Amino acid sequence: MTSPSTELMARARAVLDRIDALASISDDTDALTRLFLSPAHIKANRTLLSWMEQAGLDGFADPVGNVICELPGTTNSRPPLMLGSHIDTVRDAGKYDGTLGVLVALNCLEHLKARGVPPSVPIRLVAFGDEEGVRFGSTILGSRAVAGLTTADDLKRADPDGVTVYDALIEASFEPEDFAAASMTDSPPAAYVELHNEQGPVLDTAGESLACVSAIVGSRRMLVEINGLSGHAGTVPMSERQDALAAAAECICLIEDACRRPDMVGTVGFLETHPNAGNVIAGRVRFSLDIRSHDDALLKSVCDGIEEKIAEICARRDVDVTFETTGGAHATRCDDRLIQMIEKSIPGNADQVRRLPSGAGHDGIAMSNICPIGMIFVRCAKGISHHPDEAVDVHDIAAAIGAMDRFIELYEREQVLPSPEGS
Amino acid sequence: MTSPSTELMARARAVLDRIDALASISDDTDALTRLFLSPAHIKANRTLLSWMEQAGLDGFADPVGNVICELPGTTNSRPPLMLGSHIDTVRDAGKYDGTLGVLVALNCLEHLKARGVPPSVPIRLVAFGDEEGVRFGSTILGSRAVAGLTTADDLKRADPDGVTVYDALIEASFEPEDFAAASMTDSPPAAYVELHNEQGPVLDTAGESLACVSAIVGSRRMLVEINGLSGHAGTVPMSERQDALAAAAECICLIEDACRRPDMVGTVGFLETHPNAGNVIAGRVRFSLDIRSHDDALLKSVCDGIEEKIAEICARRDVDVTFETTGGAHATRCDDRLIQMIEKSIPGNADQVRRLPSGAGHDGIAMSNICPIGMIFVRCAKGISHHPDEAVDVHDIAAAIGAMDRFIELYEREQVLPSPEGS
Repeated sequence: MTSPSTELMARARAVLDRIDALASISDDTDALTRLFLSPAHIKANRTLLSWMEQAGLDGFADPVGNVICELPGTTNSRPPLMLGSHIDTVRDAGKYDGTLGVLVALNCLEHLKARGVPPSVPIRLVAFGDEEGVRFGSTILGSRAVAGLTTADDLKRADPDGVTVYDALIEASFEPEDFAAASMTDSPPAAYVELHNEQGPVLDTAGESLACVSAIVGSRRMLVEINGLSGHAGTVPMSERQDALAAAAECICLIEDACRRPDMVGTVGFLETHPNAGNVIAGRVRFSLDIRSHDDALLKSVCDGIEEKIAEICARRDVDVTFETTGGAHATRCDDRLIQMIEKSIPGNADQVRRLPSGAGHDGIAMSNICPIGMIFVRCAKGISHHPDEAVDVHDIAAAIGAMDRFIELYEREQVLPSPEGS
Repeated sequence: MTSPSTELMARARAVLDRIDALASISDDTDALTRLFLSPAHIKANRTLLSWMEQAGLDGFADPVGNVICELPGTTNSRPPLMLGSHIDTVRDAGKYDGTLGVLVALNCLEHLKARGVPPSVPIRLVAFGDEEGVRFGSTILGSRAVAGLTTADDLKRADPDGVTVYDALIEASFEPEDFAAASMTDSPPAAYVELHNEQGPVLDTAGESLACVSAIVGSRRMLVEINGLSGHAGTVPMSERQDALAAAAECICLIEDACRRPDMVGTVGFLETHPNAGNVIAGRVRFSLDIRSHDDALLKSVCDGIEEKIAEICARRDVDVTFETTGGAHATRCDDRLIQMIEKSIPGNADQVRRLPSGAGHDGIAMSNICPIGMIFVRCAKGISHHPDEAVDVHDIAAAIGAMDRFIELYEREQVLPSPEGS
């Protein structure tokens, strides 16, 4: 990959300055925490609106706190290309997650605006207000509202202090009764394209700056409980044990084996054992199971196989097992034509651009209900995200800006809507 | 095995009545808890002394709270045969643990006393005051004092309220300065024989009342800590993970495999994972390892093998591992001649009497420092102990009394000291 031009590097530094500026707007004094509709979120929205205004782009906040602006095109009867990401954060967050995609897209729009020639289609930018879902326990509430998926019940969700989304919207001077007006279902964008840091280590390990996302993975989440029989660690012979932790260990090994394939991940991250004493055989163990794949059929078949084999292990060990489904979602495929355009936009040979599934959720999951979606991943150091150590190199930001410029150019040039297949 | 005689059943019911009487003496109102030197322990000591007095056996409490009496023999120059067990309990205990052995032995001494013919050798009974070690975190303090192993430092141990053993002895009207006088090292007993409920399920599973103990197992206790790398459950490919919990699971399977043999047990009962969230790959796991065997050489070789293989697993998975030894003891072999006498004392063919290692610790570990030891195990329902559900059938108590009677008879008849080998 060639080095970014001096111009792109200057634009990347400008983007980085703004990332730093937004990082200073936090609900915490010593960490970056910017929860949906918090004072820091509202202040960040205002800062973003001021930057839009400086660029000559009329911005506004929609009824649920998403900030939107649009650069008009020469053919404004065409539905817009929509770019964006989110500006809410987790607690003690990194500064790139979400914000990077919003500010790279804003930089590209400013650049287009400055050249004085309008694009052939309108280009809309959105900074979603609730992707992380930390405050109200409801992920992608911002994009769900835009996709017309938010219900009145969503507004009744309360944060740990008992403040509902409805209350918080009022307090931030929004009009929650109008939340349905945030929906773009009546005149949906032609496509939604998001740039985001990878939040995983693949690009860093491969030494590559950018990748094209193939899909946002589907997932299945379960809680497995094994009930055996507690007993004295010294007096119960191995052959007479119903050891819940030994059973769980065999299950965890099985899960790892079943998921050890390129198109799948499987994780047991939570495990609780009872009574949890070194000299007592474990009588009860509960553990989580989080399996993800971009291939729904594969996900189902692997999960079914794992459940069956866990049941076999537990029957052989004479321990009881129960499965509780705690969550899950279908995979969201990125649009094939957007994928092709994104691959052509990334520097180098389009055939060699890495296609990666996104293991984390993104606003595209909601947006895929109203338009085709595409995503660009940017390398982040060691794959670290949701942590203050999250880092994206300025050269990669420059490469990302260049790719987004080219994507917009290709999109304009094609002048056709991506096919709806894969949406 | 033939049914116990009417006389033995009557004696068993008398023992059971006393077990119930001691079970009513508790530090807790709704559970049996009788900790070393607690008001309940001192009261139980007094009750026991009153029963000794009723039987015409002069009893006394030694300087550390063990209760002792002796039935003189015809040849009092010979060192005594010592029988006994303990009367302290764990919290929320079963009523048979320890108490059964003390009261069966007392019943046998009463029976001998009542026949009017002194035994050929003196027979001493002891009710140790601290076997469980719950209050001061120091197991077998009572028998260690008798074996001359207690040091002034032991008296400085404090309970959770800051009361030391020294303070507690004073409060219970003992003279802790005299603790060395509890030692029998100057004129040790010829043998120590203890009857105890099995605290494991082997006899219950086999449908047998009694067993002869071959040894008190040796143990090795470790804390294993595995440090991998936390990461997002969705974004880190399986091939790039350093999953501490998956590594621990493989280790637990290995430990179970290595210990799955008749002469060994191995338990992972404690496990703690960090950050312990379903959607985060575990970065750190700590787990306990408790391995026991009556064969010290085997214990060492299996433990060394496990440590080596855990190191290999962790190296292959690119995670760090550390081992911390948290405890351990050599095995204590029971004396061969006492074993032979005990096997002849148990009803049925001596060749067919089951020999069992004791997986739990007992006062014999300390006593083996001053004399040969032997133990008789009595079946307990489902192997449950250290729990209010602990149960020993009255028929088995009758069989135990019969076996102890016969053991004393055989011991008297042999009129020789057991050889010191195996002490």
